[in-house]
Amino acid sequence: MLSEDAAAEVVAVARRAREAATTMAPLPRAAKDAALLAMAAALEARCAEVLAANEADLERARAAGTSAAMLDRLTLTNERVTAMADGLREVAALPDPVGEVVRGSTLPNGLELRQVRVPLGVVGIIYEARPNVTVDAAGLCVKSGNAVLLRGSGSAASSNQALVDILADAGTAAGLPADAVQLVPGAGHESVKALMRLRGLVDVLIPRGGAGLINAVVTESQVPVIETGVGNCTVYADADADLDMALAIALNSKTHRPSVCNAAETLLVHADIAPELLPRLLPALAGAGVTVHGDAEVTAAGAGAGVDVVPATDADWGTEYLSLDLAVAVVPSLDAAVAHIRRWSSGHTEAIVTRSQPAARRFVSLVDSAAVMVNASTRFTDGHQFGFGAEIGISTQKLHARGPMGLPELTSTKYVVTGDGHVRS
Amino acid sequence: MLSEDAAAEVVAVARRAREAATTMAPLPRAAKDAALLAMAAALEARCAEVLAANEADLERARAAGTSAAMLDRLTLTNERVTAMADGLREVAALPDPVGEVVRGSTLPNGLELRQVRVPLGVVGIIYEARPNVTVDAAGLCVKSGNAVLLRGSGSAASSNQALVDILADAGTAAGLPADAVQLVPGAGHESVKALMRLRGLVDVLIPRGGAGLINAVVTESQVPVIETGVGNCTVYADADADLDMALAIALNSKTHRPSVCNAAETLLVHADIAPELLPRLLPALAGAGVTVHGDAEVTAAGAGAGVDVVPATDADWGTEYLSLDLAVAVVPSLDAAVAHIRRWSSGHTEAIVTRSQPAARRFVSLVDSAAVMVNASTRFTDGHQFGFGAEIGISTQKLHARGPMGLPELTSTKYVVTGDGHVRS
Repeated sequence: MLSEDAAAEVVAVARRAREAATTMAPLPRAAKDAALLAMAAALEARCAEVLAANEADLERARAAGTSAAMLDRLTLTNERVTAMADGLREVAALPDPVGEVVRGSTLPNGLELRQVRVPLGVVGIIYEARPNVTVDAAGLCVKSGNAVLLRGSGSAASSNQALVDILADAGTAAGLPADAVQLVPGAGHESVKALMRLRGLVDVLIPRGGAGLINAVVTESQVPVIETGVGNCTVYADADADLDMALAIALNSKTHRPSVCNAAETLLVHADIAPELLPRLLPALAGAGVTVHGDAEVTAAGAGAGVDVVPATDADWGTEYLSLDLAVAVVPSLDAAVAHIRRWSSGHTEAIVTRSQPAARRFVSLVDSAAVMVNASTRFTDGHQFGFGAEIGISTQKLHARGPMGLPELTSTKYVVTGDGHVRS
Repeated sequence: MLSEDAAAEVVAVARRAREAATTMAPLPRAAKDAALLAMAAALEARCAEVLAANEADLERARAAGTSAAMLDRLTLTNERVTAMADGLREVAALPDPVGEVVRGSTLPNGLELRQVRVPLGVVGIIYEARPNVTVDAAGLCVKSGNAVLLRGSGSAASSNQALVDILADAGTAAGLPADAVQLVPGAGHESVKALMRLRGLVDVLIPRGGAGLINAVVTESQVPVIETGVGNCTVYADADADLDMALAIALNSKTHRPSVCNAAETLLVHADIAPELLPRLLPALAGAGVTVHGDAEVTAAGAGAGVDVVPATDADWGTEYLSLDLAVAVVPSLDAAVAHIRRWSSGHTEAIVTRSQPAARRFVSLVDSAAVMVNASTRFTDGHQFGFGAEIGISTQKLHARGPMGLPELTSTKYVVTGDGHVRS
């Protein structure tokens, strides 16, 4: 059961955000950029406060027996605070999406029609461990003219509070409304539940984190949700693949940074090249520390190459390992690869390696994912790599935004129609 | 409780739609246009079937004591069937949104990036009475490469079944997958409930109808929803309004077609012009059959002009009358008008009448609605009026689509990234 007090507090915070949003929306770029630069300077000036708050979080986490990997994600240092400040400066340097005329025309009756980008209003971000998301998300929302409600994890509560205090102080001093950047109060799932009910007060919720969090928000929320991040990505080595390229792309997609959503989790190899590719690929993967989960043919090839392969089950095809594990299967055709992807992929990123133009064209046409790579690593699906300058997440759904989301994806539009007394007859 | 059989039937229909969607997505424009033209011809050729089925619906409706207005909405005639067929031909003549490159660039590392429009996949339309929506929605979905699930009202069940049979027959004969256009089986709210659970099978639900239906879908659905249609629209006559223009726009916005969502429901008059405008406006509205619900000042002006004014309550400001009723208030300033709109409007369309450029600019900047009119009737918020050639509805929400939705709003995008062996280092 949701405590009524906790829910009322979340409602109060959201109402203040709604008010702040009406002040934020018409702010010109110069005002928003000045606030972002002031926030960056304040983060650096008050770094000691941030680190002290972070130490409190770390102490609690250590006492709770948190894993070293989680502790590392939670840890802030001078350098990490400087990186957050620099992130705000980079966002300040990006063009303002608000006010962009997306399309426009003069209608036959002389009415002037313009579709103009406007802020969404109140954006709620629900995220886990890393405190840097607090600053990144706040910066992107301020730049796009939105008020933001930040609901971080309990484990980073002190760090997030210190960061938001600094951002809000600096932002207010620079002319932003006081409630432009707020932390959502309350621990546990309660505050998330309360947020998810605030249709009309909150314009969109963006969950960033594990599949469990995202699924819960997506199925329970009455506020519209942009689904991000689950990446069960596939590399398909086609019959016409250059073998060296297939090897390089498979290795890079899996091992460059295995813990992120654009890392590959499955490799499909066309039967025609399997006898030549697998004996090179399996030792290379093993050498990079990758555990291969293979179908019968891959397992046999592993035995031939002296590489241990774990027999794959259906669960492997559907798993986002986020680790140095890779599911590998041999497929009889490009269409079989597409069918496998349709069944198992999360629709994030799939790659084909091929020298065949018809094969590339067919794969691109039939694969329904946010990003489809031809002869490139899945790791390129990223707002910075795509040249967007910033990223609030990677959408794996089809409405509003799909793929890496930059500043324009944090906006809506409105139609402005200008006449000189036009009426309909 | 939802009957399990009914739910299973809806799931089966949705699965078939999902399959059909994968065939629809890569279809070139010529194939889709040929199917639309074949559907149009079939509707005309089999018009007698449609009219016979419609007569069955009408008989049931008459027996149930349905109102004349509802009977009229339900009634099909030769002319109305021809109009539906012509609608399909118009959609065939529109450009194909699928395949449009929304943006593209060559990244510094040589990767070629393209963001390309693709169909959403499976679109569910939930609608009331009018059988023409069946044909309109099917046409727009086919053109945009989507499979469509049509869930019409029970009162039009026979008409809708006949229409879908004809569309599906003709579409299939012209090469579309057999399940591109399907009716959702089951009566009452059960089939809607079942649809709303099919996240992953259905990509979007678009409810079209009254506020009750839309609210139910918006709050209960696990499938993403595009909210359409509720229009509590406002005309604001500014201090600097041309009085003749204010009169003409107020009358046109209210009376041109009072039953639709872009009709005005509220008129706000700046206090400076109220003494001159109201004595002309109130008799003109009365002469057009409009019942005015006014604040104290408007009621007094009515008494002075010999026009009965119903004293307005807060409920009036929040009501979408959809009838010849209009709530009228005097406001002390443009900002007071904006505050009224923020509190009461549904965010569909608001209009300002003014000769002042600063006033127009301020109103456009501060009013957060899907469409903002300057010196034009609210009635222009319409896909056909905007030159989109077709309209699936008018979105009053901010995600994905806002305002009149044409063919592009029935699409998503995917990123296609082409390299020559690019890996991340």
